[in-house]
Amino acid sequence: MRKIITISREFGSGGRELGKRLAEKLNFAYYDREIITEISKKMGVTEEYAQKLSERGIYKHAFQIAKSFTVYSEIQNNQTEILVAQQKILKNIAENGNAVIIGRGANVILKKYNPMNIFVYADMEAKINRCRMKVEEDRNLSDKEMENKIKQIDKNRKNYHKIISNLEWGDKRNYDLCINTSNLEIKKIIPALAEFIGEYFGGDRE
Amino acid sequence: MRKIITISREFGSGGRELGKRLAEKLNFAYYDREIITEISKKMGVTEEYAQKLSERGIYKHAFQIAKSFTVYSEIQNNQTEILVAQQKILKNIAENGNAVIIGRGANVILKKYNPMNIFVYADMEAKINRCRMKVEEDRNLSDKEMENKIKQIDKNRKNYHKIISNLEWGDKRNYDLCINTSNLEIKKIIPALAEFIGEYFGGDRE
Repeated sequence: MRKIITISREFGSGGRELGKRLAEKLNFAYYDREIITEISKKMGVTEEYAQKLSERGIYKHAFQIAKSFTVYSEIQNNQTEILVAQQKILKNIAENGNAVIIGRGANVILKKYNPMNIFVYADMEAKINRCRMKVEEDRNLSDKEMENKIKQIDKNRKNYHKIISNLEWGDKRNYDLCINTSNLEIKKIIPALAEFIGEYFGGDRE
Repeated sequence: MRKIITISREFGSGGRELGKRLAEKLNFAYYDREIITEISKKMGVTEEYAQKLSERGIYKHAFQIAKSFTVYSEIQNNQTEILVAQQKILKNIAENGNAVIIGRGANVILKKYNPMNIFVYADMEAKINRCRMKVEEDRNLSDKEMENKIKQIDKNRKNYHKIISNLEWGDKRNYDLCINTSNLEIKKIIPALAEFIGEYFGGDRE
């Protein structure tokens, strides 16, 4: 059986770092930005455009950026197309072998593959500090500006999740393990986490 | 620094088993029923009585079982006394050395000791199966009866949590790690979990 690990994460919680390190440790394929790259290639749009449309509330973003009805319709179509493409790509990934997949509602879309679903979160203070440390362009934002940015991005993720399922993003019931990174150094917990995952997939799930 | 692990858990999720096995693995003291035993001894009441009053919404239970106002007042006083005794005992435990503590709002009461707080939960189906396997008297209950029992016990825990703090019981923000045991064999994840905890308390927390 394929072993699929999905990582859902609050912005700034270090979920991506956790996923990447985990994939390396487990020798699993790792998918994050790669999914958007593939979509943008297939559709002949820029990665930035595909990214914007892929994790926003459907049609909402179209409405925000459209300047006329014709443009609105076109963006609507693109957004639907992107979501369909994303679903196909995720399923291909799952068929292809063991993988760690970051975001994109993979926990929902790949349900039939019985993925292990991890949610990564942290206190606002920890997230702000992390963003400031990791993202050059965020260094000049005030705490309040950082907090607003974090909240807006997570709101988009929540909306996207609502489109593709009736489950609530971040509700612990929809995940196998929820990790609060506020008091953790991510790289240090990877061996323990890899072992935990090994046991999760072990036994009768093999 | 003392290493305190608190385990909050949904009834039937296996949180107690997880805590007990963890304490054995880590060679930490383990406190669960022991706390009630100590309270009942100190107050000269039965363990059953101390148990009932210790995890219910304050005064609510007194109201339910009192037959007259005098009795009601007495139970009220007992309940307050039990909560105070429980707080003292928890603090003694924390001062005494490394420990795993099950329930009783230890995550809140012992906040200043920087405990690692774990929440253990599971799907209703898994919890019903578990109760049926572990508790002799539950074997004859229907699924619906089991579900009601589980919900009632968790409601009491939620109420108790409300008395001692303004934090919501089961809200992942108040815990460091939330473990869904629905698809896990608890004893198999103990080594990985012990390692995870070692890292949590490692480094600058030593």
